[in-house]
Amino acid sequence: MSKIAPLSGFPEYLPTDRIVEQHFCDVIREVFELHGFSSIETRAVEPIERLSSQGEDADKEIYAISRLAAGADDKGEGDREARLGLHFDLTVPFARYVLEHAGSLQFPFRRYQIQKVWRGERPQEGRYREFTQADIDVVDVGELSGHFEAEMPLVIADAFARLPVPDFVIGVNNRKVAEGFYHGIGLDDVAGTLRMVDKLDKIGPDAVADLLRAAGASAEQAEQCLRLAEIRTADESFVDRVHALGVAHPLLDEGLESLAAVVHTVATAAPGRIVADLKIARGLDYYTGTVYETQFVGYESWGSFCSGGRYDSLASDGKVTYPGVGISIGVSRILGLLLGQNLVRASRSTPACVLVALVSDSDADRARSVGVATALRRRGIACEVAPTAAKFGKQIRYADRRGIPFVWFPGAGSDGSSGADSGDGAGGIERGDEVKDIRSGEQVSAVAGSWTPPAEDLRPTVSRVV
Amino acid sequence: MSKIAPLSGFPEYLPTDRIVEQHFCDVIREVFELHGFSSIETRAVEPIERLSSQGEDADKEIYAISRLAAGADDKGEGDREARLGLHFDLTVPFARYVLEHAGSLQFPFRRYQIQKVWRGERPQEGRYREFTQADIDVVDVGELSGHFEAEMPLVIADAFARLPVPDFVIGVNNRKVAEGFYHGIGLDDVAGTLRMVDKLDKIGPDAVADLLRAAGASAEQAEQCLRLAEIRTADESFVDRVHALGVAHPLLDEGLESLAAVVHTVATAAPGRIVADLKIARGLDYYTGTVYETQFVGYESWGSFCSGGRYDSLASDGKVTYPGVGISIGVSRILGLLLGQNLVRASRSTPACVLVALVSDSDADRARSVGVATALRRRGIACEVAPTAAKFGKQIRYADRRGIPFVWFPGAGSDGSSGADSGDGAGGIERGDEVKDIRSGEQVSAVAGSWTPPAEDLRPTVSRVV
Repeated sequence: MSKIAPLSGFPEYLPTDRIVEQHFCDVIREVFELHGFSSIETRAVEPIERLSSQGEDADKEIYAISRLAAGADDKGEGDREARLGLHFDLTVPFARYVLEHAGSLQFPFRRYQIQKVWRGERPQEGRYREFTQADIDVVDVGELSGHFEAEMPLVIADAFARLPVPDFVIGVNNRKVAEGFYHGIGLDDVAGTLRMVDKLDKIGPDAVADLLRAAGASAEQAEQCLRLAEIRTADESFVDRVHALGVAHPLLDEGLESLAAVVHTVATAAPGRIVADLKIARGLDYYTGTVYETQFVGYESWGSFCSGGRYDSLASDGKVTYPGVGISIGVSRILGLLLGQNLVRASRSTPACVLVALVSDSDADRARSVGVATALRRRGIACEVAPTAAKFGKQIRYADRRGIPFVWFPGAGSDGSSGADSGDGAGGIERGDEVKDIRSGEQVSAVAGSWTPPAEDLRPTVSRVV
Repeated sequence: MSKIAPLSGFPEYLPTDRIVEQHFCDVIREVFELHGFSSIETRAVEPIERLSSQGEDADKEIYAISRLAAGADDKGEGDREARLGLHFDLTVPFARYVLEHAGSLQFPFRRYQIQKVWRGERPQEGRYREFTQADIDVVDVGELSGHFEAEMPLVIADAFARLPVPDFVIGVNNRKVAEGFYHGIGLDDVAGTLRMVDKLDKIGPDAVADLLRAAGASAEQAEQCLRLAEIRTADESFVDRVHALGVAHPLLDEGLESLAAVVHTVATAAPGRIVADLKIARGLDYYTGTVYETQFVGYESWGSFCSGGRYDSLASDGKVTYPGVGISIGVSRILGLLLGQNLVRASRSTPACVLVALVSDSDADRARSVGVATALRRRGIACEVAPTAAKFGKQIRYADRRGIPFVWFPGAGSDGSSGADSGDGAGGIERGDEVKDIRSGEQVSAVAGSWTPPAEDLRPTVSRVV
């Protein structure tokens, strides 16, 4: 047997950090549902043919799967089955799901999906081979109303506002702005130009200008591209700044109008959360309208933690086209930052709020402690019974090591004694129960059918480390 | 591109059925947490060497993964990496997790895990290639207290009692009973004997007796094996019935005592939920003490929906041994039965409780509807805004098709008119809002900041079909 060792790129959490991950997924799910998105889960695998049709670079990232023992007994139908691979995002499987189930879905279809995805890339900081994405998309038949493009960032702003994340800004652009602008200045290789401008953050404006000129742009064209990419405003004033560059094209006007509408709506409903940032490129072959990126203030070098955009042809069966708009939260990337830098923590390592102590190992005393636990659980208070009737000091340490805030002493009596003689009430005088807050040391009389912990202790809490 | 077609063995749900699946996972999680189990998730992959060391049949079920584009750039560290496969259960990865993180865990460690697993078997009814398991285990260092063996079925009984499942019975046995009994009658090939007795349900007692005799057992030995396997009692009376067979062995006594304790505890705390069933074999090489199976009354032919047992060596690093006991709910198998036979259903296909109608497509009317939605969401009421300002009849049908129970009419006024002239309040008289229960047709005045739906409508409900 090989030595046990972590697998690079496949993060796993200890229970306390897993509570943080659960909290993030719970809050995201809650917000998605409040906004009326339906949950779906797609299978982990798709035919490789479908996965690898998504852009030239996709192949490299795909994990293919195969039956280890695929042999003689597989010859029958096995050979006719398509080769399968693990999905590398949730958009490709969603598109397939829409086509497969179109007849059973109601359009516009609002769905969310929180699942693991896999990419066979080389691991590096903030990049994983297995990670969790949380996606929302709205997909319609034939036409998709533009107001959904403003809705996406509002849902994200609602989710992030409820999570212990740093201050955030959602950057937004529209593919038509750059496309129309480039055509307007006579650069018709839109994809190539975008690809070069997309390197701005990495190599700087001078190097990008060099690239553009090397590709045939004039000095003035290169200069105009850079000026457009510089524009970044938190309100609709970007429109005037683009107009000031003196370029005209119908597609440019269309993109500016659409982008202004998104910025206006989001800035009104979620002030300070949106910025029009005309250098955002994203998904060169993929998106056809609004595109989104989300940065945490002070962590810009980490890149985007939540991205997406509009695609006029999410899926098509040859006859019907399904346009969509969606956005995806990189849950694992966010946790990689927050847990990696100790920016958040959970208040304990277990859901248990109470440890019910064990007075002795007798059947009667165990049954009594189990009875207390059952009464607490019936009212939604998570608890466990101590594993052994160790000295109370040791039972308290058991709770303390797990962060369980309360220890319950059945029949502890008012003198706080060990209660070892409390027995099962058969003939003796039954002593009352007590419960101790092991953080403050305060110990009070309590009845399992009515005692309630402070609301903030009922479940583990997750908060920013300050 | 290949035609879109479902993949056999990889179930996927439409939104309404997905709500059923979510409900099951939510309730199971809630109960596991109430009982003080901590959540973990393990990565989807393990080294194949680790997966295939679990019994001779395991190989057949393993899906190996490989980078599709693994080529030149993989030669470096890539070649030194262990080959990976998808986990086929949650026990093998949990055992590895315990060994990997033993220094950071508190023992006894109570964990739950609700995740997908994959098996490359041929699909058949109730068997999947991708399915969800929900496991609890308690693992300790060196020794594991016996009372945990009674705790497992109590947690399951608590969970199933809160779920819309058929009446259920948890069958329990102890490996030591059969092992001691076989030794006591002079049959020392315990594993071989168990394997034959395990065929009872399939081939019947006469054929099992033939098998046993063919393997060298006397007629009397075979008869004794069958008599033991016949014993099935809902209380501790099985002990007397075994004693009546006149066989003595220290391991038999140990097993009977342990099994009687489990049956006594569970029968007391959860009457009618447990039965000692001495023919239960399960996990021939795996379990060392109590074993569990769970059947739904009336669906016995479907086999067990929740199984597990005690293993004295869940994990071992050569020096320290970690004994454990665990039980696993076959979530996908249960849903396969309940959804496949239309025994449960969700009340709607979306979390949305309210559709906020759109009076017109003007910015002001859209903003007004969005404002209503925001106010409802702030108080935890899931809703969506109608996609277009279609006629109200059409908007109501939009809600009806999704099962959304309420439609909200901003500024509908007391006359119930379309409100098309209500505008944004600029100069005109602002009409009050109304909300319609589209099931009853009842329409009442409402204020978004205070209206509350009936508790049973707030979220989708999941219930048995009667």
